[in-house]
Amino acid sequence: MFDFSKTRAAFHLPDGVTYLDGNSLGPMPRAAQGRVAAMMADEWSEMLIGGWNKAGWYAQPRRVGDRIARLIGAGPGEVVMGDTLSIKVFQALSAALALRPDRRVILSDSGNFPSDLYVAEGLARAMGATLRVVDPGDVAQAIGDDLAVLMLTEVDYRTGRRHDMADLTARAHRAGALALWDLAHSAGAVDVDLTGADADFAVGCTYKYLNGGPGAPAFIWTHPRHAAAAQPILQGWMGHAAPFAFDAEYRPAPGIERMRVGTPPVIALAALEAALDVWDDLSLSDLRAQSIRLTQAFIAGVEAACPELVLNSPRDPQGRGSQVSFRHPQAYAVMQALIAAGVVGDFRAPDVLRFGFAPLYNDLADVERAVGVLARIVHDGSWDRAEFHQKADVT
Amino acid sequence: MFDFSKTRAAFHLPDGVTYLDGNSLGPMPRAAQGRVAAMMADEWSEMLIGGWNKAGWYAQPRRVGDRIARLIGAGPGEVVMGDTLSIKVFQALSAALALRPDRRVILSDSGNFPSDLYVAEGLARAMGATLRVVDPGDVAQAIGDDLAVLMLTEVDYRTGRRHDMADLTARAHRAGALALWDLAHSAGAVDVDLTGADADFAVGCTYKYLNGGPGAPAFIWTHPRHAAAAQPILQGWMGHAAPFAFDAEYRPAPGIERMRVGTPPVIALAALEAALDVWDDLSLSDLRAQSIRLTQAFIAGVEAACPELVLNSPRDPQGRGSQVSFRHPQAYAVMQALIAAGVVGDFRAPDVLRFGFAPLYNDLADVERAVGVLARIVHDGSWDRAEFHQKADVT
Repeated sequence: MFDFSKTRAAFHLPDGVTYLDGNSLGPMPRAAQGRVAAMMADEWSEMLIGGWNKAGWYAQPRRVGDRIARLIGAGPGEVVMGDTLSIKVFQALSAALALRPDRRVILSDSGNFPSDLYVAEGLARAMGATLRVVDPGDVAQAIGDDLAVLMLTEVDYRTGRRHDMADLTARAHRAGALALWDLAHSAGAVDVDLTGADADFAVGCTYKYLNGGPGAPAFIWTHPRHAAAAQPILQGWMGHAAPFAFDAEYRPAPGIERMRVGTPPVIALAALEAALDVWDDLSLSDLRAQSIRLTQAFIAGVEAACPELVLNSPRDPQGRGSQVSFRHPQAYAVMQALIAAGVVGDFRAPDVLRFGFAPLYNDLADVERAVGVLARIVHDGSWDRAEFHQKADVT
Repeated sequence: MFDFSKTRAAFHLPDGVTYLDGNSLGPMPRAAQGRVAAMMADEWSEMLIGGWNKAGWYAQPRRVGDRIARLIGAGPGEVVMGDTLSIKVFQALSAALALRPDRRVILSDSGNFPSDLYVAEGLARAMGATLRVVDPGDVAQAIGDDLAVLMLTEVDYRTGRRHDMADLTARAHRAGALALWDLAHSAGAVDVDLTGADADFAVGCTYKYLNGGPGAPAFIWTHPRHAAAAQPILQGWMGHAAPFAFDAEYRPAPGIERMRVGTPPVIALAALEAALDVWDDLSLSDLRAQSIRLTQAFIAGVEAACPELVLNSPRDPQGRGSQVSFRHPQAYAVMQALIAAGVVGDFRAPDVLRFGFAPLYNDLADVERAVGVLARIVHDGSWDRAEFHQKADVT
C-alpha cells in the first residue's frame, strides 16, 4: 500500500477544500515552487543560453518522457514531451495516416474529447480523409477494412467509461488499421499498459492526474515498430536529426525525438519534473486499487443519500477510470453550490456533475464529506439561489 | 531617450559577463521570478481549477497578445499567444494557403530559419503544394502569378539582413499572393509596423529580444481583413467559438482567438508578462536608434581591431536587425574562447560568429569590451587550445 500521509503532504490544498477536480487540473505539488524558482535563479539567470547544455534543457523533453513512460507501460526512450495534447493528437494522427496511405478513414467516438475530434476534422479536410464518429458502444462493430486509424480516448471525460484498449487495438490491427490512444484521463489514473495492449500511438496531458500545472506540456508515444517510419506533417527543427546543423532540408531524428517540434517549455517542464517525483516509488496497482475503493464508496454513498441523482458512469469499476459522474437537471447550479461549500468538482454540459478521485491526495474522508455536502445541497434546495445560476465566462 | 540605468537594472546578468546572445535567449527579467512564484502560490495553489476564471488564465493569451501588438504595429485584439513559433508558422501558413485555394506555391528564401522551411515542407507535402526556396536577394523577382504565399523571416538569423517588409508584401499582393512574416529576430529588436506594411499574417517568438524565458510561448497575428476567413488546419478546442460547450463540431472563434489550439502555458505566460512590463513605457524608435548606435560601433571596432574577420552583415543599418555577424574559419573555437572569457555570443554553422545587441541591457561599454576581448583572442591564438575545439551536444 502506498503511504497516503506522505503523498497527501506532497500537495498544497487550500484549507477547507475537498478537491475532486484533479481530473481537470491537479493541485500544486509543494516541491514545484522550489524547483521552478531554482530553475529560474540557477539556470536561466546564471547560465543564460548555456543552460541548453549545462542544465540539460535540450534533453529534458526526453528525460521527462522516460519518467512518464513507466506510468503508461512504455519503455525508456519511447516518450517525448512538448506542446499541448491537441497538437500531439495532430502529430500522431498525421503520422498514422501516412503509414496507411491507401486508406483514408479515421474512426472515433462521441465520447472522445471534442478537441481530438476538431483536430481530426481539420486534418481530414486537409488530407482528403474522412472522420467517422460513432457511439462509444458501437466502436468495435464500426471497425472495417477501409479503416486507417482508430482514434480513441481511453477514459471518457464525462462518464469515466473506460474502453478495452487491448481488445479494440487488436480489432483495429485485424482490420489492417492502426490504433491511437489519448490517455488524458488515464495517465496517473488507471493501470495503462501500452506495450501489453500493442497500441501504435498514444498521447496525453500532464496537468490532470500528473499535477504538472495549468498548461503543462503533453506527451507522445510511438510504438518502437513505427519509430523509424512515423513521419508527422508537423515537422520542426527540434525533431530534426541534427537541429543545430541548420540544414535546409528536413531529416527526421531517429525514434521518438522526431515528434519534437519547437523549443521546449523549460519552465513548465521544471514544474512537471517536481510533480513526477511523487510517482517514482509508487505502486501503480496499489494506487488503482485505492482509486476503485474511492469511486465505489462515492457511488454507494451518493446513491444511498440522493436517489434522485442518476449515475452517469459505468457501475463496474473495471470499465471505469478514476472519476464518477451523476446527472441532475440543474447540474450547473448544484455544482456552483458545492464549490461554494468547499467541495470542488466539475460541471460538464448539459447536466453532468463530475467528480475525480486522486488517491495521492483524496481519501475516504473526502468521499464522506463530498457525499454529505452534496446530499444537503440537493435536499435543502440551497443550489436554487440566484447566485448559483449565474454562469461565468468559463465553466 | 529611454533610461538605460533603469532598463539594465530590470535584468539579472551574471557578474563578469557581457551578454551578446539575447537574440538567442534573453536574460531573466528580475520581476519574472516573483511573478511566477506568485502565480504558483496565489493562483494555482489556492484557486486550483478556479484560476481559469478568477485569475484570468483563460483570457491571458489574448491579454498578453495585446501587449505584444504594440511592439509590432498591430492593433488590440489582433494578436494571441501560445505554442511555439514552428507551430504558429504551420497555422498561419495553412490558413494562408486555404485563402488561395487555386494556387499551390509557397515562396521562401534560404535565409529563413530552417524550422520554418521544415514546417512548410511538411505542410506542402500534405496539401499538395510546392515550396520554392530562393536566395534572399532573389525574392522580389521570384514572385510570380502562381504564388499563394510569400513566407519570409524579416531579419536573417545568421547575417541580420533585414527584408523590406512593405515592399515585398506589396509585390506579393500585386501578384495576388499573401505575405506571412516571421518576426523572431524583429519583435523587440527593430521598428516593426505590420499594419503599415499591410502584411497578412505574422508570427514570432518571445524568448529572444522579449526575454520571456526558455521555451516562452509564441505569438500569431492575422490582419483584421482575414480574421473572419482564416482557418488553419490545426484546430483545437481553445480556438472554438464556445470551447466549454463541448460541441462535437468545430466552429472557429471570431477573430484571432481561432488561432488558439490547446490549453495555454499559464506558468510560462506569467514569466512573459513580467518580461513585458519593461516595455510598457519605452519609445521603440529611441530603442531602435540606440540599437543602431551599438551595432555600428561594434562593426567599426571589430573592423579596426581585427581586419582578418569578414563582416557577414549588411553595412547599412537600415537593412540590418539588431545583430552583427562576422566570419572566421575557426568560428566555433573562437566563440568558445570568447565565452570562456565572459563575452557571450553565438556560433552558427559553418563559420559565423554572431553577436546580438539589446539596448535594454547592452551599452557602448559592452561593445568596447567585446571588441577588445575578441581582438585579443583572435590575435594571441588562445582560441586554438584543444578545449575550445570540443563540440558539445548543442552548440
